[in-house]
Amino acid sequence: MPGSGKGELSRLFQEKGVKVVVMSDVLRERYKAEAKEGERLMDFAFRMRNLYGKGVVAKMCLEKLSGDEKVVVFDGVRNWEEIEEFKKRGEVVIINVHASPKTRYERLMRRARKDDVLTIEGLIKRDFEELEMGIGTVIALADHVLVNDKSLEEFKREAEELINRLI
Amino acid sequence: MPGSGKGELSRLFQEKGVKVVVMSDVLRERYKAEAKEGERLMDFAFRMRNLYGKGVVAKMCLEKLSGDEKVVVFDGVRNWEEIEEFKKRGEVVIINVHASPKTRYERLMRRARKDDVLTIEGLIKRDFEELEMGIGTVIALADHVLVNDKSLEEFKREAEELINRLI
Ligand SMILES: Nc1ncnc2c1ncn2[C@@H]1O[C@H](COP(=O)(O)O)[C@@H](O)[C@H]1O
Repeated sequence: MPGSGKGELSRLFQEKGVKVVVMSDVLRERYKAEAKEGERLMDFAFRMRNLYGKGVVAKMCLEKLSGDEKVVVFDGVRNWEEIEEFKKRGEVVIINVHASPKTRYERLMRRARKDDVLTIEGLIKRDFEELEMGIGTVIALADHVLVNDKSLEEFKREAEELINRLI
Repeated sequence: MPGSGKGELSRLFQEKGVKVVVMSDVLRERYKAEAKEGERLMDFAFRMRNLYGKGVVAKMCLEKLSGDEKVVVFDGVRNWEEIEEFKKRGEVVIINVHASPKTRYERLMRRARKDDVLTIEGLIKRDFEELEMGIGTVIALADHVLVNDKSLEEFKREAEELINRLI
């Protein structure tokens, strides 16, 4: 979920030499080329899914692989159909980085750029949009959960322990 | 999710003198009185929701309170509308007891009565039925996560620490 700190986990994987595909980057590339005027990234994603199926973003990400990666991290899975796409290509391990809504909203507020007007109501609305995409199913069926509500050091320690078990 | 060990958490709350309302028990009471012949508990729950709204099981559970409880545990929330019902009555803290599907399925297989024929396919199907009820949203927005994939002792220790912070 937004603000949980999954980017930090990706960074740690990357440090270990693991290829990371940030799904929103791949989506954004396509968005720049194909979005309608004024269309938000999230609305573009909904439209792509309606056009090409709910696993479409995973398919776009799989095209970014050379084919000889042993382990790849896909950062930003949003629904179970994406997991199904990944499963066609290899073993899938789902990691959920969890933080409470309170912690996430505080982080997002702190992290906001000066010209962002973030409100709690807006963040809650965004959470429910993410959930509508189907992310709750992926979270509920995660193989590993890292709870990121303590210090960054503690999170890193737990994340590294998990990474070492997985790669 | 089924087999995560949430019942164990309820038991620990109860040991501390906290009232626990097991939502499936309340549902089952009504089921015995009103279910159609051959109707499964889960299908009865779906039907009740269609008839009386998605928060109906929470409403039924709230009727079980005397009104002077300070803290109550509702064991078995399945959707966000139930959370909304509880919020009308007081502060709500959501605890997710998480275990990986692999761990849950192993536990459920081990726990099965002799005459239960549990298959992995059947358990996966049930997971997706629970998710269809909306439990993924509640899990994604949990205030606390207890990961129950280690020893029972470790789980109890973490659970007791959380309980002491909450009551
Ligand atoms: N809040 C609820 N709403 C609807 N169905 C429920 C609820 N709680 C329990 N159930 C049903 O009861 C079964 C056992 O629930 P549990 O005791 O929580 O594992 C579930 O599989 C559901 O079919």
